[in-house]
Amino acid sequence: MAGVNENYLKLQAGYLFPEIGRRRRAFQQANPGANIISLGIGDVTEPLAPAVIEAMHSAVDEMGNRETFHGYDDDGIGYEFLRDAINKNDYKARGVKLDNDEIIISDGAKSDTANIQEIFGLDNIIAVADPVYPVYVDTNVMAGRTGPAAQQGTYAGIVYMPCTPENNFVPDPPKQKVDLIYLCYPNNPTGAVATKEQLKKWVDYAKENNSVILFDAAYEAYISDPKIPHSIFEIEGAKDVAIEFRSFSKTAGFTGVRCAFTVVPKQLKAYTKDGRGAALHPLWCRRHCTKFNGVSYITQCGAAAIYTPAGKEQIRKTIEYYMANAALIRESLAKLGYKVFGGVNAPYIWVKTPKGISSWEFFDLLLTKAHVVGTPGAGFGPSGEGYLRLTAFGNRDDVKEALERIKSIS
Amino acid sequence: MAGVNENYLKLQAGYLFPEIGRRRRAFQQANPGANIISLGIGDVTEPLAPAVIEAMHSAVDEMGNRETFHGYDDDGIGYEFLRDAINKNDYKARGVKLDNDEIIISDGAKSDTANIQEIFGLDNIIAVADPVYPVYVDTNVMAGRTGPAAQQGTYAGIVYMPCTPENNFVPDPPKQKVDLIYLCYPNNPTGAVATKEQLKKWVDYAKENNSVILFDAAYEAYISDPKIPHSIFEIEGAKDVAIEFRSFSKTAGFTGVRCAFTVVPKQLKAYTKDGRGAALHPLWCRRHCTKFNGVSYITQCGAAAIYTPAGKEQIRKTIEYYMANAALIRESLAKLGYKVFGGVNAPYIWVKTPKGISSWEFFDLLLTKAHVVGTPGAGFGPSGEGYLRLTAFGNRDDVKEALERIKSIS
Repeated sequence: MAGVNENYLKLQAGYLFPEIGRRRRAFQQANPGANIISLGIGDVTEPLAPAVIEAMHSAVDEMGNRETFHGYDDDGIGYEFLRDAINKNDYKARGVKLDNDEIIISDGAKSDTANIQEIFGLDNIIAVADPVYPVYVDTNVMAGRTGPAAQQGTYAGIVYMPCTPENNFVPDPPKQKVDLIYLCYPNNPTGAVATKEQLKKWVDYAKENNSVILFDAAYEAYISDPKIPHSIFEIEGAKDVAIEFRSFSKTAGFTGVRCAFTVVPKQLKAYTKDGRGAALHPLWCRRHCTKFNGVSYITQCGAAAIYTPAGKEQIRKTIEYYMANAALIRESLAKLGYKVFGGVNAPYIWVKTPKGISSWEFFDLLLTKAHVVGTPGAGFGPSGEGYLRLTAFGNRDDVKEALERIKSIS
Repeated sequence: MAGVNENYLKLQAGYLFPEIGRRRRAFQQANPGANIISLGIGDVTEPLAPAVIEAMHSAVDEMGNRETFHGYDDDGIGYEFLRDAINKNDYKARGVKLDNDEIIISDGAKSDTANIQEIFGLDNIIAVADPVYPVYVDTNVMAGRTGPAAQQGTYAGIVYMPCTPENNFVPDPPKQKVDLIYLCYPNNPTGAVATKEQLKKWVDYAKENNSVILFDAAYEAYISDPKIPHSIFEIEGAKDVAIEFRSFSKTAGFTGVRCAFTVVPKQLKAYTKDGRGAALHPLWCRRHCTKFNGVSYITQCGAAAIYTPAGKEQIRKTIEYYMANAALIRESLAKLGYKVFGGVNAPYIWVKTPKGISSWEFFDLLLTKAHVVGTPGAGFGPSGEGYLRLTAFGNRDDVKEALERIKSIS
């Protein structure tokens, strides 16, 4: 009898976005004339950069000729031309020394942050921030590293670390020992960033406890403050304790194109039950070449184009466009008396709800009175209650119009 | 202390292809003038069809305009236009009734056949053919469903079903109860196909035992015999017991483009330990949308183009080209007295080694005397010993030249 993976049955229904959609549709149906604007878009809205388009056209043509056709990406970890461009521009330029083959290309940071837990044993204690990107949690539930769902969508056995204004949304390492620590900075959903000093505390903790930090840097391209690190490997010693995830999704609008990468330093180890160290780089490569067959050649050519002088300039402009949206939202809401976090070095703005109302009450207020959609913070975890997440993506005129409407009801 | 997944440490080194490469390089170094031809290529060699190229150019252009830009493929299971084209052409046309959302688009049949085991519990007993595509086995080793590696690269706890000329390389269901059964027809590496009668035995077995058949049909496009089923769902009742994997890799030369799909019928169930049925379709979708973020829009447009009249005609011609290679290899070797299997409805030719020599001895003989590279059958499992796998991919002139050389040493 085929047995099901019963851990999957512990998963809570993907509640947040379906519920947002449900309420939005219900309101639209009841008010067919309402022009609803979303400030909650989690996807990019600007087109791919011209340099990327040009590179992809050229790669498509290569695929149409026998002489220049590309089949399997041999070992599935990505073309050298892309790994080399990443290494030079994202790491060497910031003083981080990596071998090209420590950079492993994939189809998305979601896939990588979801799959990375597989190379670790089932006994590891997992720590996540609260609020949190649900993928980190759900994939550990699926693997069987948690108990059943508890209140508010949390799971028994996971260590949740509250992120609040008091700690600038960057938790200190816990008193207890944890084995695998998911950190995401710039942060989704709070828009917070971590300083070198804050990350150093984590690197020190991980060294002391032989823990591994799983560092999601998918939004690093939105950092404008030169003091904020783009990579955890800017912290001395981090290569002994951390894996880093990066993505072209938000950096270059690749959400519909699919390209990302993970850096697993060769010196990084986890341990067998009898205490022997096992290097994680060969295990991740083994997972990759057994369960994955590489990223589209056309996509990899497009990704490499963002490292050309023209490509760099073009993606910088798009990010500036989004961040001007963020500044508008942040400043307009602050003027209206809202308490606003993030939105400076990250595309997310984290707004405290007014008068202590709940996330969903604020959501409903904005939807029904201003016809504006946000994302209730409570959907990201208990510490997200009392917040709403807004994003920098979308059209400038829509953003302005939405802010005018919020002003009129405030 | 971060603990490693110790199951990964049971994996045998990926021995086969590295060892082939090592011997080939050593020979080439010792004989720099030798023009080595590979008849062991596991990758396509012909370019993408013009209809695909055209569709991809057009999709790239859409991605360069704000109005037609595509971000995330919402639920990550693929665009309706592609799932609908697949359903109409690959299933409805063969009398198989599916809902479009039973077809879930992915980046490769390797990923899907690797990931599918995740939705099942760790206690399931796994049955595979011998010889076997190593991904089925290795992913179950990684998950912890096996004991340590035994002799000849097999693993304790897996039921290996020998495929030999006596059973036409299609095993009968075993006497014992097994829970998850991996079948691949047309078969890699033997080139065998399964008849409706043979598959019906398996469907009956699975019904009787509440087993699930994981049916890899990645090579179905190479079937020319109208009596051979392309899909396991052509067998009555199979939707109660089977999942099917398909790929555009070999069908349309997408090995470097990455697109495939899996069919999980909504009525298909696995069971909890206390005997409750759990539908697998929502579990696979949940896995997909938690650990994957969809296939490139450009790739999906390219895949849909193979279902246009022009696209169909173009990919048919490429397959005919490869299958003419296969016929040449098969017939030439048979004339020379070799015992040859497959190569009629599959791109693989399975050659018995002469005079009872081993797979590797035959490999070395062809390499050193004819400068021709094949793939030793022993690398696919104990029952592959005494065979060599040749493939239909590659250039016609190279195939002819290789066969001339084999003739000269035979």
